Amino acid sequence: MTLAPDTLAVKHYLVDLQDQICAAIESEDDDGAFREDRWDREQGGGGRTRVLQAGAVFEQAGVNFSHVTGGELPPSATAARPELEGRAYQAMGVSLVIHPRNPYVPTSHANIRFFIAEKPDEAPVWWFGGGFDLTPYYGFEEDARHWHRVARAACAPWGDEVYPRYKAWCDEYFFLKHRAETRGIGGLFFDDLNEWGFVRSFEFLRSVGDHYLDAYLPIVQRRRHLPHGERERRFQLYRRGRYVEFNLVYDRGTLFGLQSGGRTESILMSLPPLVRWEYNWHPAPGSEEARLYSDFLRPRDWI
Amino acid sequence: MTLAPDTLAVKHYLVDLQDQICAAIESEDDDGAFREDRWDREQGGGGRTRVLQAGAVFEQAGVNFSHVTGGELPPSATAARPELEGRAYQAMGVSLVIHPRNPYVPTSHANIRFFIAEKPDEAPVWWFGGGFDLTPYYGFEEDARHWHRVARAACAPWGDEVYPRYKAWCDEYFFLKHRAETRGIGGLFFDDLNEWGFVRSFEFLRSVGDHYLDAYLPIVQRRRHLPHGERERRFQLYRRGRYVEFNLVYDRGTLFGLQSGGRTESILMSLPPLVRWEYNWHPAPGSEEARLYSDFLRPRDWI
Repeated sequence: MTLAPDTLAVKHYLVDLQDQICAAIESEDDDGAFREDRWDREQGGGGRTRVLQAGAVFEQAGVNFSHVTGGELPPSATAARPELEGRAYQAMGVSLVIHPRNPYVPTSHANIRFFIAEKPDEAPVWWFGGGFDLTPYYGFEEDARHWHRVARAACAPWGDEVYPRYKAWCDEYFFLKHRAETRGIGGLFFDDLNEWGFVRSFEFLRSVGDHYLDAYLPIVQRRRHLPHGERERRFQLYRRGRYVEFNLVYDRGTLFGLQSGGRTESILMSLPPLVRWEYNWHPAPGSEEARLYSDFLRPRDWI
Repeated sequence: MTLAPDTLAVKHYLVDLQDQICAAIESEDDDGAFREDRWDREQGGGGRTRVLQAGAVFEQAGVNFSHVTGGELPPSATAARPELEGRAYQAMGVSLVIHPRNPYVPTSHANIRFFIAEKPDEAPVWWFGGGFDLTPYYGFEEDARHWHRVARAACAPWGDEVYPRYKAWCDEYFFLKHRAETRGIGGLFFDDLNEWGFVRSFEFLRSVGDHYLDAYLPIVQRRRHLPHGERERRFQLYRRGRYVEFNLVYDRGTLFGLQSGGRTESILMSLPPLVRWEYNWHPAPGSEEARLYSDFLRPRDWI
């Protein structure tokens, strides 16, 4: 006998995760506080958007929970799974992007989501997806190793092949084809996950969600006081342009949100507060900036 | 008897147009000069990218000519015309985006392009496309009227219905669905144009290209000395975010360029040099900023 997936338990977990992450980020910042907007969506569902702006450590941190329902999955969700076309759905998730002020502190992103697609007289199709990935402006091998070790630990109880599989998927997903660069040093990415059954798959989702702060906060603490100047700031703003390019051109979550009539301000809170583009700019050979491209913005085995 | 389209004449016109526009922009700026990069594309063709950076009047001006050839039209070009799938093609055009420094001077964009899709033993399919549109940060009805009067004059010899048709197409095309805003006050947009035959269609293309400077420069001259402060600058940087959103999420030219393996730095020179995003920002009711949204960022009859 197959039990229906426990949608309510997932929702409770996600709401708690949002609370827990916001509390930790706020306590790491000496100054900033999250502001919350609760919103409803005309077509069904709503969310809790929380944004911390102009903090001492975090220039902007957005941590969103949303639970939306719809009569028909949008194209971004069915492109790879045409059998789901026309199904009603529920999508719920926590999505966060943290843009620190100090260029030596990397930007981080995490997403934890649950989908269920329903059709009268048929069993619901459900799956989990998510992961977390790190985008440094200046590379530190020690940080990259720490980030990936925590990612591996999150996956370990599900078998040794899980981390390498989702690590590779992350490298492949967060890739800017038009730049031939990864977005950052990756981490974990998974989607369409139901192969372990609901209970074990949901446990995995929780493991990923629960490991995010362990992965990120030690890096923030290590780098937040490093002195920096105009040069590092300019490079940070320049590299943030790649973040915008990825999110608006490639990111499935962003496209899903915009196509499904999501709340634009909540979706686009992933975009950095200040960004530069500079035509045909290249780092000076041998510089720390050049080392980011050569040593960090391509898939590597970090462990 | 149908003559083959005179591809070489189009190319000569486009190269001359680039020269003429660059000379005029440079002479309007007291300080800046265009830098040229010539480039070749592995898959065929190349271009002349010209960018003026950090000028006195223009914070960035990009005026590109490109002529690319390919074995197969990319999806962005055949989505609406599946009969052209798999055809070899040539695409040539001039594309420009001017980002002024003073927030009272609008950003302008123009594009003039020619496509020819070929298949052995069949007649080539060719068409022109292009137009120009204006994106103000602060609205001046007088400027909007001038811009649209010049647009109408460019179309007049082809019949009274041409300006209204291409004006409406422009409003529809430069629309940010996720914001329910037009990008600016529009202008002209046309595509798939071959209905007047090659000679008359090419004349129309030239008329649009030749009217761009008449439409834009008087507005630049009228507004470039207006005093402004931090508030206007912040609003300009914020509104530039919409420009980025449009170009990366919706613009067919950008997607065509990125998908067809175009030169990324030339394609993305349309992005502004400095941009802000601010979560859930809204203009104060009754302010000049609010008036931009209420009076300018929706389709209007400007003449």
